[in-house]
Amino acid sequence: VSDNAPPIDKACLAALDEADPLASFRALFDLPEGVVYLDGNSLGPLPKATRARLDEVIGREWGRDLIRSWEANGWMDLPQRVGGKIGRLIGAEPDSTIACDSTSVNLFKALAAALGLRPGRRVIVSERGNFPTDLYVAEGVAALLGAELRQAEPDAIEAALDGSVAALTLSHVNYRSGRMHDMARLTRAAHAAGALMVWDLAHSAGAVPLDLAGCAVDFAVGCGYKFLNGGPGAPGFLYVAPRHHGAAMPLTGWMGHAEPFAFAPAYRPAEGVARALVGTPQVLSLAALEVGVDIALSAEMDAVRAKSVRMAELFAALVERDCAGLGLALASPRDASARGSQVCLRHKRAGAIMRALIERGVIGDFRPPDILRFGLTPLTLRYADLGAATAALAEVARALSG
Amino acid sequence: VSDNAPPIDKACLAALDEADPLASFRALFDLPEGVVYLDGNSLGPLPKATRARLDEVIGREWGRDLIRSWEANGWMDLPQRVGGKIGRLIGAEPDSTIACDSTSVNLFKALAAALGLRPGRRVIVSERGNFPTDLYVAEGVAALLGAELRQAEPDAIEAALDGSVAALTLSHVNYRSGRMHDMARLTRAAHAAGALMVWDLAHSAGAVPLDLAGCAVDFAVGCGYKFLNGGPGAPGFLYVAPRHHGAAMPLTGWMGHAEPFAFAPAYRPAEGVARALVGTPQVLSLAALEVGVDIALSAEMDAVRAKSVRMAELFAALVERDCAGLGLALASPRDASARGSQVCLRHKRAGAIMRALIERGVIGDFRPPDILRFGLTPLTLRYADLGAATAALAEVARALSG
Repeated sequence: VSDNAPPIDKACLAALDEADPLASFRALFDLPEGVVYLDGNSLGPLPKATRARLDEVIGREWGRDLIRSWEANGWMDLPQRVGGKIGRLIGAEPDSTIACDSTSVNLFKALAAALGLRPGRRVIVSERGNFPTDLYVAEGVAALLGAELRQAEPDAIEAALDGSVAALTLSHVNYRSGRMHDMARLTRAAHAAGALMVWDLAHSAGAVPLDLAGCAVDFAVGCGYKFLNGGPGAPGFLYVAPRHHGAAMPLTGWMGHAEPFAFAPAYRPAEGVARALVGTPQVLSLAALEVGVDIALSAEMDAVRAKSVRMAELFAALVERDCAGLGLALASPRDASARGSQVCLRHKRAGAIMRALIERGVIGDFRPPDILRFGLTPLTLRYADLGAATAALAEVARALSG
Repeated sequence: VSDNAPPIDKACLAALDEADPLASFRALFDLPEGVVYLDGNSLGPLPKATRARLDEVIGREWGRDLIRSWEANGWMDLPQRVGGKIGRLIGAEPDSTIACDSTSVNLFKALAAALGLRPGRRVIVSERGNFPTDLYVAEGVAALLGAELRQAEPDAIEAALDGSVAALTLSHVNYRSGRMHDMARLTRAAHAAGALMVWDLAHSAGAVPLDLAGCAVDFAVGCGYKFLNGGPGAPGFLYVAPRHHGAAMPLTGWMGHAEPFAFAPAYRPAEGVARALVGTPQVLSLAALEVGVDIALSAEMDAVRAKSVRMAELFAALVERDCAGLGLALASPRDASARGSQVCLRHKRAGAIMRALIERGVIGDFRPPDILRFGLTPLTLRYADLGAATAALAEVARALSG
């Protein structure tokens, strides 16, 4: 916001909401009264259509059609069907994405498969400061398969890539800072070193435009319950580039078999990404996830991104103006191209501030030791919400600084 | 049924239903009109309370309380809470069972952990004819960790145990034949050979009395959507004997960390069975599973088993009497102590017979090449249903033999 911009006041925010091409999406969600929800990047809110869909799946498909639903109601295809829709959101080739298991389990599959594809190499590189479960899973895969996890500082990732590296695994958008990596550049760097690239899209899918195919990404995983609004603990997803569809997967359950219902005694992996499936599809949670994914697909991703960027800049400007001198500092990159769909602030009493904000119905996240995290979900947030959030933040920070 | 027993007619079956101490349970389930459901061992029917519970979880907990539900509504504890209830059903020590992931993924954890606990031994023994996903997972674990899967015939299992064997893994009740292994004896045999015992309880939990602690079982896994009526693709469960709670787990996600929300960079496994957790709890499906488990817990297991045995004997007797000469042969053990809660018949046109039965609303399973499988779920089935099923079977088999 430049110095001679008009002041950001209630009328200005209302005008932005009035002109917002995504404004109608908010009505598709059940949002509690009196809450400013800046945590849709942790748990996306409830789509109104989810209850009706679950009611149908539970009452009609499970209750009435019973076991016949595996075929008659397409239950068996849910991982591919919902995964295929997610694939469209992330710029994947068709038939290369499945929805199943958790993000962590899918990351395990991708890393183990990557180690298998680079048999002479025994190092997985990741970023110190990556989301912990990513580091834990990488550490566990490495311990299990006689490899090693090498953690690099964010600006030393490329320098950490050498001929011993089988895979580089990074979160595209950092959970704490919101910093977004350059997917094309880092994927190229991994490939230049002969390594495979495994992205975690937990804070990217449904939030920022993605082009996995164009970036020649090898594997990607992500989360169904953040920007995809799939519900608490929704299944994650796994993308496998078509050129790796023949890779051996470490978890060889019956759903990854070429003919699960032939009940053959020996494992014969399915063609395509389906071989990364393991157990029986989680029907109820996949049905809920599909509702959220369908909404995301119906929004123009460029409009989503444009609103996200505008909201982030506006929120940062409001905080700078209204919370000056209260000990708050921007912890997210100022440059939009290096930032996902969240704004983080640093404050030494961040935990107490977030508790007080939540009491007032302004819901964000505290990430220890000192981060206030505000997720920006363009399908459900109004510009006016940012004004309300900033006002509450100023009051709370002032009270706690006093 | 001895020669001088009274004839089994409609009046006799009605009298058995009248005297059935479990008769009232059927009203707890939504069962479609005109259907005799003999497939509750594949997908358990819908408990009436599930819709209301899911509606509450979706509408109030997710929709209104949003992210706060992880603490306020106990979401974070669901794997332990539901797992603890399943533990009571299977005779586990307290705090030794968790509900999470799929049966296949849980088996992977158990087998990898077992190999880790027996570092000098590189063989996993299982049974030829075990449920395929169990064999596939064992084959995959073995391939991944440089071990070997040895498949033995059912009567040669004990002979296959030697000093190279790290783990014996078996399904307690065989999915095709319904044959039930002697858990105490085979667990002792595994231990005598220095191996660990990993049971798959998919067709046992909620169906037959189990005493994991008394049998000194090492690990067990099982399924939530069969006799536990948790819904299609419900989470599975994993039991880890307290003496193995320190074992290293191969899937090291944040939910298995000692302090998931400290976001520490290095993995430090939780104490207890919680270290076998991986990703975020599947809230919707765990809530649905809990409803089914609560019903199972409210039934007296000895009464469930007694009704199951009586139903199996009655059904076998009815088939012998009413389907004589139609090419049907009993494929399940006649001895109740060696049989789970199902009756299987063999017929060379089993597939066609099952299709015709299902068209008439008598729903069982076909398992290639020649098995008709009828699951006996004492909480939802009436003795009269067995009469109706036998009459339909006789008609269909007669028509297809003609």
